Amino acid sequence: MAGKTQVITLTTDFGCKDSFVGIMKGVILSIQPDIKIVDITHEIERHNVEEALYALTYSYAYFPAGTIHVVVVDPGVGSGRRPLLVQGEQHLFLAPDNGVLSFLYDEENKCTVRVIEADHYFRKPVSRTFHGRDIFAPVAAWLGKGIKPENVGPVISDYSRLNIPQLLISDECIRGEILYVDRFGNLITNIQKKRLDSVLGEKGEIAVECKGVTVRGLYDAYADNTTGLPGIIINSFDLLEIFCYKGSVQETTGLKRGDRVQVCLG
Amino acid sequence: MAGKTQVITLTTDFGCKDSFVGIMKGVILSIQPDIKIVDITHEIERHNVEEALYALTYSYAYFPAGTIHVVVVDPGVGSGRRPLLVQGEQHLFLAPDNGVLSFLYDEENKCTVRVIEADHYFRKPVSRTFHGRDIFAPVAAWLGKGIKPENVGPVISDYSRLNIPQLLISDECIRGEILYVDRFGNLITNIQKKRLDSVLGEKGEIAVECKGVTVRGLYDAYADNTTGLPGIIINSFDLLEIFCYKGSVQETTGLKRGDRVQVCLG
Amino acid sequence: MAGKTQVITLTTDFGCKDSFVGIMKGVILSIQPDIKIVDITHEIERHNVEEALYALTYSYAYFPAGTIHVVVVDPGVGSGRRPLLVQGEQHLFLAPDNGVLSFLYDEENKCTVRVIEADHYFRKPVSRTFHGRDIFAPVAAWLGKGIKPENVGPVISDYSRLNIPQLLISDECIRGEILYVDRFGNLITNIQKKRLDSVLGEKGEIAVECKGVTVRGLYDAYADNTTGLPGIIINSFDLLEIFCYKGSVQETTGLKRGDRVQVCLG
Repeated sequence: MAGKTQVITLTTDFGCKDSFVGIMKGVILSIQPDIKIVDITHEIERHNVEEALYALTYSYAYFPAGTIHVVVVDPGVGSGRRPLLVQGEQHLFLAPDNGVLSFLYDEENKCTVRVIEADHYFRKPVSRTFHGRDIFAPVAAWLGKGIKPENVGPVISDYSRLNIPQLLISDECIRGEILYVDRFGNLITNIQKKRLDSVLGEKGEIAVECKGVTVRGLYDAYADNTTGLPGIIINSFDLLEIFCYKGSVQETTGLKRGDRVQVCLG
Repeated sequence: MAGKTQVITLTTDFGCKDSFVGIMKGVILSIQPDIKIVDITHEIERHNVEEALYALTYSYAYFPAGTIHVVVVDPGVGSGRRPLLVQGEQHLFLAPDNGVLSFLYDEENKCTVRVIEADHYFRKPVSRTFHGRDIFAPVAAWLGKGIKPENVGPVISDYSRLNIPQLLISDECIRGEILYVDRFGNLITNIQKKRLDSVLGEKGEIAVECKGVTVRGLYDAYADNTTGLPGIIINSFDLLEIFCYKGSVQETTGLKRGDRVQVCLG
Repeated sequence: MAGKTQVITLTTDFGCKDSFVGIMKGVILSIQPDIKIVDITHEIERHNVEEALYALTYSYAYFPAGTIHVVVVDPGVGSGRRPLLVQGEQHLFLAPDNGVLSFLYDEENKCTVRVIEADHYFRKPVSRTFHGRDIFAPVAAWLGKGIKPENVGPVISDYSRLNIPQLLISDECIRGEILYVDRFGNLITNIQKKRLDSVLGEKGEIAVECKGVTVRGLYDAYADNTTGLPGIIINSFDLLEIFCYKGSVQETTGLKRGDRVQVCLG
């Protein structure tokens, strides 16, 4: 892995009202006071491992090489589920073994998965309800101080995977789903630009259909759509997105995460 | 401009649930890892340029000389609207050219407005939906690393201004409006203490009238008003404010941002 | 007090929408740019001194020795109430004299309470509505720069205490209350593990009763309770907690902060 660690990121379902996040930061800074801690989000829906997966999938790569990403969305805390350390090409990841890091496993030759066993790095006594504080925060801080991943625990291959919804591709149609609805009410799908290009090519207009709602019109910028109606855009993560300029598609259509989406010529 | 940059502030309408803010921080720290990043707020109402203007107007000056303030409330992202760099007396400001920095332009001789054109500082490819990530964050980070504003782009004078509501002043009355409602339900108006003093002087009691609600009683501290009724105070930003001790004026009166306010003797 | 200050924490009822918190950070960094600022929470219910007390009680000790904890939940701002500096064994605390630091006073021999009087450290002019900005932030920053507590003001002994609810203990029952409901809908009580152990010992099963709801079953980990019903757990702060695995006890029972709880054998 390239790069000295200067940043630890946190992604949790702890919210911002409770002091859980502050406590994790206190634990980290008690071990490694020179690190910067950045919140990716703490507003993951409680216990929603899939939502955390997407939040991290589309954000981790923007951080400096050497960054340690800590994810604590952990309904199984204190049970048998193992804490993991995953070494990617440029970053380290700490998370419970519940599939939340599945996006990394697709390129398995590029990542190494370890189970965290070196309990001398844990905060003692280790509770059975808050491993964010007792395991993930201190181990991240020690890694940030320079201990090597191989000192944290052995490589494993039987880690859990989340069933990431795949695209269904036919001749001139792609079926996917709404991955996420952002604060603006934009509906972000799992249909990547490269898929659109290869399936639909330059053949003309496309139409997106979702639960009886049909959207036409592919725009380059939100503000280009002055119709007041929903439009289609390839967003900054190269994903197909349904939007409404200065409005919320979610509010006007009622569509939501998980709804099936179909894109066809037409 | 005085002062080495040690702080970048962020003001956006991105909210705290989505990972947009975390991504901007990742981009900044990838370029300039030694900077401190402070959130002013990310809870600006979506696309509400005016609300962002007020948030920054009353907060920027509390930061160290050399601070770079980044504002991304940007409904026109990806369209023709230009990204701006404004040099004030002590601080730098980056924002889309939608008037959100209008509070600076009133003292034009003290600020220089540039259009950001030096695209070698941008993140590539530049998307058309997330200039916070691709333009504002990286340019702020490079400025924080020490590049000079003149290297970012040329001075312009045809930037957009927002129509900031002005006070209407008659002999013994001032008409303004509610600028903002804070978390405590206090109603903050755009009527400054100095205006009150010059128009109403020391002539006696004042009354504030807003949509049929009349408030009397000017207090020095919230806790001095033990009537249970709304009172008037000059707040810590020297603005006239309507408050209710340990209660919410907004909840009890239903008054809201934009409502007209009149202050008279009486 | 051991330890050089490297961290200032903030606990307020300012919320994250208004720019009050950002302003406090700007003031701190203007005085002491090398400090790290960590948010414990800003979502304390407005004016709820008791909630702030609990937030800090269970979080402050996780921060490095030398940390300065600033609490601004301050309905009495600008009135006669005094600003305090409390020196604990490892940390400093700044807060209004409204009892919010009462958890420290129980071990009085271990803490020193001072009234903040050295107004040359204040931001001028001192407003009467925002002492977070004008008194607490700058004094914390100066303390972080190394001024000594004795230079801030004299020791006092007539500070305010909050009436912290005590447990009622009989032969084989403990009566307490719900201190807090967290984001997961878990009900955290003020009944400590050590009390449970000494009163109920190893005598067998316990039952928790609260407003007609009876909960049985003491679990070691949330995931161990697969009944779908509420269960009992000793949480990571050694407090008795009522939880529902992957559900919200608050939503299903309607129980809330302040409700009386009784734990008995049976």
